[in-house]
Amino acid sequence: MKVIQKPTNARGTRDFGPKEMAIRSNVFATIKRHFEAFGFQSIETPAMENLSVLTGKYGDEGDQLLFKIINSGDYLSKVNGDPLALGSKSLLPQISEKGLRYDLTVPFARFVAMNRNDIAFPFRRSQIQPVWRADRPQKGRYREFYQCDADIIGSDSLVNEVELIALFQAIFNSLNLRTNLIINSRKILAGIVDKLGATDLFVAFAVSIDKLDKIGWDAVAVELGSNGFQPNQIEALQKLFNFEGSNANKIELLTEFFADNALGNEGLSEIKSVLRLSDLNGYDNANLIFDFKLARGLSYYTGLIYEGKSVDVPFGSIAGGGRYDNLTAAFGLPNMSGVGISFGIERIIDVMRELNLFPEIQISASQILFTYFDEAGQALAINISNQLRKANIPSEVYPDIVKIKKPFEFADKKGIPFVGVIGEQEIKDQTVSVKDMKNGEQRVLSISELIEYMVAI
Amino acid sequence: MKVIQKPTNARGTRDFGPKEMAIRSNVFATIKRHFEAFGFQSIETPAMENLSVLTGKYGDEGDQLLFKIINSGDYLSKVNGDPLALGSKSLLPQISEKGLRYDLTVPFARFVAMNRNDIAFPFRRSQIQPVWRADRPQKGRYREFYQCDADIIGSDSLVNEVELIALFQAIFNSLNLRTNLIINSRKILAGIVDKLGATDLFVAFAVSIDKLDKIGWDAVAVELGSNGFQPNQIEALQKLFNFEGSNANKIELLTEFFADNALGNEGLSEIKSVLRLSDLNGYDNANLIFDFKLARGLSYYTGLIYEGKSVDVPFGSIAGGGRYDNLTAAFGLPNMSGVGISFGIERIIDVMRELNLFPEIQISASQILFTYFDEAGQALAINISNQLRKANIPSEVYPDIVKIKKPFEFADKKGIPFVGVIGEQEIKDQTVSVKDMKNGEQRVLSISELIEYMVAI
Repeated sequence: MKVIQKPTNARGTRDFGPKEMAIRSNVFATIKRHFEAFGFQSIETPAMENLSVLTGKYGDEGDQLLFKIINSGDYLSKVNGDPLALGSKSLLPQISEKGLRYDLTVPFARFVAMNRNDIAFPFRRSQIQPVWRADRPQKGRYREFYQCDADIIGSDSLVNEVELIALFQAIFNSLNLRTNLIINSRKILAGIVDKLGATDLFVAFAVSIDKLDKIGWDAVAVELGSNGFQPNQIEALQKLFNFEGSNANKIELLTEFFADNALGNEGLSEIKSVLRLSDLNGYDNANLIFDFKLARGLSYYTGLIYEGKSVDVPFGSIAGGGRYDNLTAAFGLPNMSGVGISFGIERIIDVMRELNLFPEIQISASQILFTYFDEAGQALAINISNQLRKANIPSEVYPDIVKIKKPFEFADKKGIPFVGVIGEQEIKDQTVSVKDMKNGEQRVLSISELIEYMVAI
Repeated sequence: MKVIQKPTNARGTRDFGPKEMAIRSNVFATIKRHFEAFGFQSIETPAMENLSVLTGKYGDEGDQLLFKIINSGDYLSKVNGDPLALGSKSLLPQISEKGLRYDLTVPFARFVAMNRNDIAFPFRRSQIQPVWRADRPQKGRYREFYQCDADIIGSDSLVNEVELIALFQAIFNSLNLRTNLIINSRKILAGIVDKLGATDLFVAFAVSIDKLDKIGWDAVAVELGSNGFQPNQIEALQKLFNFEGSNANKIELLTEFFADNALGNEGLSEIKSVLRLSDLNGYDNANLIFDFKLARGLSYYTGLIYEGKSVDVPFGSIAGGGRYDNLTAAFGLPNMSGVGISFGIERIIDVMRELNLFPEIQISASQILFTYFDEAGQALAINISNQLRKANIPSEVYPDIVKIKKPFEFADKKGIPFVGVIGEQEIKDQTVSVKDMKNGEQRVLSISELIEYMVAI
């Protein structure tokens, strides 16, 4: 006897059924439409990359979270040494050459380096594909999830930042989400540690500051202390970070604070330009907030950084990005400055669900289901259904000759709004009895009337 | 010094740049549109499945072609025994629990078994996702490729076959490809071996016959002989297979040939019904050809089978499928008959390219590029560009203040059809000088005139 499996999904992964797909397609389509409106050209890269492309790009933790694929065939045949003595880590490169993509940015950098001669720079590229991370699964965190990225590479003009901000605003405007886009510059953060006399501690500073939202100031202060910041530096920082005010107030404060600090002033001047030019976008519901406490986790950012949040459901960020100066250098293409934004589709959907912004999603594709009582009715149903499809009206034919109750139950369960019944009289008259599943209304229509009626709905 | 990598794709995988993406999106969109018109509901399943779901479903060869993922963390810690002594094959299940999806059908069967209580049967599901196979890469064969599947599961009515045939015809009609859809029934093949007195040799028979196109009759005859077919049986088969004629002629021939063979007659009656009902579809350019030599490779087919070919570029099949009676049984859900069709997107694109059916694909999303000479022009460019986007006209802003030659070269290389120049006079008049990149024509337009002009194009 065959063993019957109780089937399950691999841990941390999900199926998307028709209902979930309808919701997701909707959000993806909106994002895609705006990517196109802003002139972004879409690319796709393979799920599998050589580990030489992926490894060393995401830090030690990232390397461990890469899913690695075992070499095909007799993968042990080329192993040098005793596997158990080598241990998992040392054996790995001997039995695995490929991994699953961890984000879209590194594959994009590889793509740009490989295709540098064919690309018109500045290159606006968009990419919407799943990525995989061997993270411990938990609520809202999956091992497979989509990223939606837009990047402009090959130009260091701030106009690109302004364009991405407008893109952010256009997308969330369309999704009816009120948002705040928090902006800062890595140069401002560097200027701050400079002025505190802690230039060398920049990396530790950025990592700690990035946790402010999660662990709060007191814990951050302890961490800063243990990373070498002096009590007076921490105190000065606290004073600075406690400041509240408008964008203009903050700029004023920092102008004074930085005095002749070149890096800080450069960052500040970038923020001023971006704010000035972004005012021209004319999008509502998307506030642009300068917050010099914003740090962003990724180490490769070198200039402006930003992070979007929902005003109404403010947990976590729903988009983020920034400028990077050297992403393609690891692939032999230096001096290629770029700036990107990534939309967190999974969290955007969570937020929209929380706000009940998916009320009217039509799950079923079919507008009408045809049913019948005999072979003649069946033939007519098939014929009419194909006529409707040619007129772009999604329809389907119930496949079996059964008691009339069944197709109606089916239409009800699937959410098909109309059922067309083809009985003896209808065959004779070449008509269909159409029942509106919402209100129970029934009308007898000729085929051309039916098409007209369904088109009009 | 950091080692600079010469980046490459993983063997057998491809990037899709903007041009390729434009072509592919076009074909995908057409297929998707028809899937929806026929009431198919789309689902997505994860790239990774538990190996218990995948293994044993594709034959021994298939199992070897699965990409397997190494367990995360210290994957050797749970190994029982000496890895080298165990060997690659026995070690595998101890260090790998997950694999990449090999097709869309097995994950679909798992999905149906897991969601049986929520699904309205018959369930029309579509699925368009990549699959991965550790095949030796060669021309036209990749390790990552998309499948586009439509299945109707939970009904054994032939109406479903007829619907899938109409779907096939509708899709290739839209793609402007002239096609032949070859149909047969596994029951007819079984009837034939029955009548030859070789009932037990059915599996070997189907496997050999499936190679007819590739290796020709003589080689097939040798194979049949070595599989236990007697010379007189092979001769009778050759005579049968040499028959040429219309669908009606072939039905007539087999009616006589089968006489009282129940299975053969059942298959024949299915073919007759499907031909009769399909005549009602009213699609041109898609011939329906009954060919009782068609076998199809996959072992799980139990009823009608079909395979689509281009009339003009007849190498290989561009779509195929058939009825299966027991796909979900392995996951604890028996008696769930279904029928499916899979569109070979990669080969469809190859054929369309061969026939030069992608002449007018617009690669760039942007309709107009804005350029300028100073900061005031830059600000106006950003403002106008966002106004155009709101009117659904894709546009972009050249990010740098450079010599005018550069943005024009850029537009030319990227294929952007218009360039809008904003100089001193234009800022003063709030106008744009628009140059048509195709014919060099230039016109000065106000912002509202520009929007009108671009909308009209």
